[in-house]
Amino acid sequence: MAQSTHNEYLPGYKASQVIHHEWRTAENSAAYLLPTLRSLHEKNPAPSFLDVGAGSGTISVGFAKRLLPGGQVTVTDLSDEILKRAESFAAAADMTANNMVFRPANAYELPFPDATFDVTHCHQMLCHMDAPSDALREMLRVTKPGGVVAAREADMESQCLWPELPGLRLFNEVNEAVLRAAGACWSGGRQLVSWALKAGVRREQITASYGTWCFSAPEDKSVWATSMAERIRHGEMRKKGVEIGLITNDDQVEEMASAWQEWAQRDDASLGMMHGEIIIQK
Amino acid sequence: MAQSTHNEYLPGYKASQVIHHEWRTAENSAAYLLPTLRSLHEKNPAPSFLDVGAGSGTISVGFAKRLLPGGQVTVTDLSDEILKRAESFAAAADMTANNMVFRPANAYELPFPDATFDVTHCHQMLCHMDAPSDALREMLRVTKPGGVVAAREADMESQCLWPELPGLRLFNEVNEAVLRAAGACWSGGRQLVSWALKAGVRREQITASYGTWCFSAPEDKSVWATSMAERIRHGEMRKKGVEIGLITNDDQVEEMASAWQEWAQRDDASLGMMHGEIIIQK
Repeated sequence: MAQSTHNEYLPGYKASQVIHHEWRTAENSAAYLLPTLRSLHEKNPAPSFLDVGAGSGTISVGFAKRLLPGGQVTVTDLSDEILKRAESFAAAADMTANNMVFRPANAYELPFPDATFDVTHCHQMLCHMDAPSDALREMLRVTKPGGVVAAREADMESQCLWPELPGLRLFNEVNEAVLRAAGACWSGGRQLVSWALKAGVRREQITASYGTWCFSAPEDKSVWATSMAERIRHGEMRKKGVEIGLITNDDQVEEMASAWQEWAQRDDASLGMMHGEIIIQK
Repeated sequence: MAQSTHNEYLPGYKASQVIHHEWRTAENSAAYLLPTLRSLHEKNPAPSFLDVGAGSGTISVGFAKRLLPGGQVTVTDLSDEILKRAESFAAAADMTANNMVFRPANAYELPFPDATFDVTHCHQMLCHMDAPSDALREMLRVTKPGGVVAAREADMESQCLWPELPGLRLFNEVNEAVLRAAGACWSGGRQLVSWALKAGVRREQITASYGTWCFSAPEDKSVWATSMAERIRHGEMRKKGVEIGLITNDDQVEEMASAWQEWAQRDDASLGMMHGEIIIQK
């Protein structure tokens, strides 16, 4: 059922524009899956783990560490460029080719036989895809019977952003419009269970939860604000915003970028983002 | 700075309309505070804990159990009616007057001397108040230097409700309007840090996080849907919705109530609610 022609990941892969991806860890972005991983590793000393659309791989490294010594994490992404960055994170964390391997892959057509992995995982990938249920079906295909598929997807519509600076409102308006135009889903978190059902899963196979990201401490806010300011100043977001007519002049761009800088410096500022989470028992 | 004339808690205290409050536990509604409580109890065998606006007290019981044998939780609420219910939960959990005491209190004018408690806590109280910073200031007053004030407040604007049934949209529109009209804040979670700053707290005293509620399993959805259907059929919500002109006929009421019943029965349905959380070091 996989489709061969799909949308691309709009934000792109330039490090300056996705630097907040590297803030992600298994702890802050996959806590819901860690107890399952622990139980699995107790029963199976050498589990095989597939991380799909893993980007810069900082979450993957956290999984690989937990599966030492016998487990192996296969890290995939559509982009060779970002996979190189993931390899460098893995090397810096003393992971070897026994623990982590890297392979470019399209999530709709994973280059693995049926029933290859004990765990297949993605994080904030389905919400950027135009056919999320197809990708989930493909993740299920490569997962062993008795294994699990796990996904955690942002619900961008529900983000809690404070204070409500006009430049941030404009940024969110542009961001939503360009992501939707690119095929992403602005309220993916809440639809995760329904996507799994469409992929052929029965409700009783699913454990659902919600988790959050919190950007409130100064160092966390700085990471987020830097990425967002770069995206609107130099990224695809700016280009597409101009194309669809929401950005009409450079002053708007500067208003949005400087609003993020002001936000990062304000004591009362924070950003909360809710994520839907599912664990599917195959 | 406490004010003596304030708004009331709009949803009221009828058990059928607040039955979802009794779904709340220290685990699902105050996990952010539990490590702090554990550390405190290790250092202080007899901590004093104040739970403000505790409603039916199911969270308070969880705190009291964790502070056994030496600690004591003082449970307050504006309503005598709901405090009686809290007492019955405490008795059912084998708590005695050594562990838990109950006292009606207005959160703006707590009937305790300065610096009485090691921990002062509230849950989904400030977002229903017309002067949340005054209440926080009062909570700080009764807390000992070196103690903590902890609050967790829903951000109702950010709720993730799926599927988007027309009756649920209408319910949310009425709910937001009547709560705002009653003095509540629809986006309280994201404003919690700013409320603390207004109460005179310095940013470096605050640890901020976000937590969630997830209603996705059938038994959880049933609890939520039952409360909401009762509120719109028989509660203050209906009365106020008629008063402000958003409810004009009984069919609308039935549409909203039956939408909750449909939601509770659908496999793809879920509700996520994000909460702001702060721990203030006094």
